[in-house]
Amino acid sequence: MRTSPLEALLALNARYASCIDDDRLEDWPEFFTDDCVYRITTAENHEQGLPASVIYARSKGMLRDRVSALREASVYERQRYRHVVGVPLVDPPPAQDDAGVIDAVTPFIVLRIMRDGATAIFASGRYVDRIDPNGQVPRFVQRIVVCDSCSFDTLLALPL
Amino acid sequence: MRTSPLEALLALNARYASCIDDDRLEDWPEFFTDDCVYRITTAENHEQGLPASVIYARSKGMLRDRVSALREASVYERQRYRHVVGVPLVDPPPAQDDAGVIDAVTPFIVLRIMRDGATAIFASGRYVDRIDPNGQVPRFVQRIVVCDSCSFDTLLALPL
Amino acid sequence: MRTSPLEALLALNARYASCIDDDRLEDWPEFFTDDCVYRITTAENHEQGLPASVIYARSKGMLRDRVSALREASVYERQRYRHVVGVPLVDPPPAQDDAGVIDAVTPFIVLRIMRDGATAIFASGRYVDRIDPNGQVPRFVQRIVVCDSCSFDTLLALPL
Repeated sequence: MRTSPLEALLALNARYASCIDDDRLEDWPEFFTDDCVYRITTAENHEQGLPASVIYARSKGMLRDRVSALREASVYERQRYRHVVGVPLVDPPPAQDDAGVIDAVTPFIVLRIMRDGATAIFASGRYVDRIDPNGQVPRFVQRIVVCDSCSFDTLLALPL
Repeated sequence: MRTSPLEALLALNARYASCIDDDRLEDWPEFFTDDCVYRITTAENHEQGLPASVIYARSKGMLRDRVSALREASVYERQRYRHVVGVPLVDPPPAQDDAGVIDAVTPFIVLRIMRDGATAIFASGRYVDRIDPNGQVPRFVQRIVVCDSCSFDTLLALPL
Repeated sequence: MRTSPLEALLALNARYASCIDDDRLEDWPEFFTDDCVYRITTAENHEQGLPASVIYARSKGMLRDRVSALREASVYERQRYRHVVGVPLVDPPPAQDDAGVIDAVTPFIVLRIMRDGATAIFASGRYVDRIDPNGQVPRFVQRIVVCDSCSFDTLLALPL
């Protein structure tokens, strides 16, 4: 049985979230194409078309550099994170341009669990994605993380 | 590839949530049939069969009126909302009556994000739905929003 | 249209969560095979391979005993719970061994709603599952509930 396009996106997001929540950050850049855009921004900035971003990476190499920096800083080692990712909105289906690229918008929330057990909502928002499904595995050509909240935690350098 | 019944419901809920969270409330009544039932109630009232509701609309026109009232009052303009909608429980599948109507129960949570960035759980519960899949797009014949919490926020006039 | 393997898992988890959240605990053991493993443990213990568990049951009979004990104690009757279960990570698909058993890891969060309406995050984590799909309905051969938080609430005897 062939996997449906929606199931392929659900599985992609499940693998992505698991990669971060399991702290396998070195694998995280592999979810992206070599020439990619990864941004974390706020809903306000995104709606106003402002380029300001908390994180802005334009290649897989920059994503790798970010992971290296995070490992050296170890700023987040005392916490765990838990993504809950919703259903991708692919509208109009199949929403493919001529190159077969898929545009999808997907809601998410991320919990942070402190070592003392306290759990809080760390971030919520939506992924504005462009996905290339034409490889052995689908990869993100673009993932813009549009956060609902405008007050970023200083630890937000973590991939979302 | 034809979309499966479950995928059609997942996509319907994704569009519904996006409509509210993106503040496109004027499009929200279009998710319902002309003669529809939309209620927000509590789990306690629902279990006891009580008709008491926080919101009770019996037609698409009443939903439109509600959106107009919300726009005039602007009570919620300072907040954002983020739905996370679970997987519809369609039991027994395909759970269709003779007219092809689908009954489904779907869990949800809604976060509220204040302008200062504080995020809290605004509501949780389940949608008790009856869906007519026989149109260009599926529509809700009935959506009863059964909230877990019995202490309603005064802002709950927002569609859930 | 035949249900896809992923849809079957999504539906299984939806039924499981609904069973607990609707307080139909007597039905809960039926989600498991007669010889099953059900554990609740912490991420720390799980990663270190420690056998320590908050709950450890090795048969459907032990699960039934637990429900009976919960009913007698009535420790949680004043609260409601709401599961939000993510997409199962079945990797590599179809991840079936010779007997057709499916291994899946699935994120979850559980909210607790107190009778006064206050809602909090009760637990988050991942299900580490082994599922036998070869029956009238799929059943858990193993469900290890790996909680992110290490500070267990005394009420955690509730099934998760």
